[in-house]
Amino acid sequence: MNKLILLSVVVAVATGINVPPSTSVEQQPPCQTAAQWEGRASEWDHVQGRNNRFLISFDGVGLRKRVIEEKKSFMPGRRFYEYLMEYKTNTMYTINMNLQTCTVSQLKQPWQNHTIPSDATLEDEYEMGDPGSGLHVQEWSDRLPARRSESWIGIYTPKTENGGCWPVVEVFTDDTTDPPVSLTTRFFDITPGIKNMSVFVPPSFCPPSDDFEPPITNQYVEIHVENAENYGPIYTFYNYIKSWF
Amino acid sequence: MNKLILLSVVVAVATGINVPPSTSVEQQPPCQTAAQWEGRASEWDHVQGRNNRFLISFDGVGLRKRVIEEKKSFMPGRRFYEYLMEYKTNTMYTINMNLQTCTVSQLKQPWQNHTIPSDATLEDEYEMGDPGSGLHVQEWSDRLPARRSESWIGIYTPKTENGGCWPVVEVFTDDTTDPPVSLTTRFFDITPGIKNMSVFVPPSFCPPSDDFEPPITNQYVEIHVENAENYGPIYTFYNYIKSWF
Repeated sequence: MNKLILLSVVVAVATGINVPPSTSVEQQPPCQTAAQWEGRASEWDHVQGRNNRFLISFDGVGLRKRVIEEKKSFMPGRRFYEYLMEYKTNTMYTINMNLQTCTVSQLKQPWQNHTIPSDATLEDEYEMGDPGSGLHVQEWSDRLPARRSESWIGIYTPKTENGGCWPVVEVFTDDTTDPPVSLTTRFFDITPGIKNMSVFVPPSFCPPSDDFEPPITNQYVEIHVENAENYGPIYTFYNYIKSWF
Repeated sequence: MNKLILLSVVVAVATGINVPPSTSVEQQPPCQTAAQWEGRASEWDHVQGRNNRFLISFDGVGLRKRVIEEKKSFMPGRRFYEYLMEYKTNTMYTINMNLQTCTVSQLKQPWQNHTIPSDATLEDEYEMGDPGSGLHVQEWSDRLPARRSESWIGIYTPKTENGGCWPVVEVFTDDTTDPPVSLTTRFFDITPGIKNMSVFVPPSFCPPSDDFEPPITNQYVEIHVENAENYGPIYTFYNYIKSWF
């Protein structure tokens, strides 16, 4: 699968197919979220009709993510998991927190920074919450005017002195996968940086990583898809894939 | 249909079926959003995979709503509509803003205040946006601990001097309807009160309202459904239905 995508890229570059410019002329390029941060998220899965709560440590320097399911909603028999994702070795550790067991698998997606993609469209700026004293945010999407409708919307704070560009809400849909993906994620209690780097170390009961295929770390891999509006084939970018696993 | 629901309520009350208490003992009842407000909303339809943008005037005193589609995302041939909903006469006016035409139909849902239902569960309190200076919010759901999983999540500001309890984000799923409903709505640029009451008057080219069946305005109509976790039949409330039309 990875090889197939790489091949498509080589073909696209070699044949000089016209790729849309990465930023629109009407707008400033979006600012970038800090490389390292921690926070919490509440994610509604619209396919399963369920809400999941996570603690997230995001290391854009070491290309690692750690996601822990929060034991908020009590359901008898429910298992809780911790996920460690190492993109340099293409490895995912899935840790059953109840049974203290651990399985190793290959990551299915390339690394992506958690930020506003550089070719995103600025849809709107507005105030969320209390009139006059709410949260000022920008709404971005992967829409390309008259060419591609949205499959991702990202609401981020604007750039501020403390770095800014923090994720607030993201909506993401991909109905080309099986099962389809349709998520609404709210981010909160964010802190810049990583408090303790040891959170990324797999526990001792995890087996060693297998010898997986080399990872894809290029976020600008192109995929050939048909436009929903029948404007013919267009390009979409892997860096819009915003599901966590 | 309306008569059928009313009948179920009568049966439920007459036979003394055990209805869960309207508030949990562990928490304060949620505060109420102001009866009249205006604002904007951006709504992702996860079934259609499309985002719609609205201007909303909400009149909880006169039991009226006005929703205008914002002409933000240009798509050739796209029609834009204004919706006027009068719950006292059970009438919806659907106004084609391009062609200046108007159709009249019967409302399909009972009136509901746009607020946190009184039996909602407080899931969490957190800060959205910039670390240390973000938006303080509460997350509510229609989950009943160990009895019913979520089909609605509402993120609201807490009560403040200016009234507070403003909607920020809502997620709502109902897969019992055909087609199913799955929405993520972000609310913003909210102002308390209604600037100009004439926004609720249908334009002159609208036909007069038909003689519709009397509306249901009781928000606490109960419906008998099966719990997803097989804990047996439970009750859900109409006032959790958060779709706009």
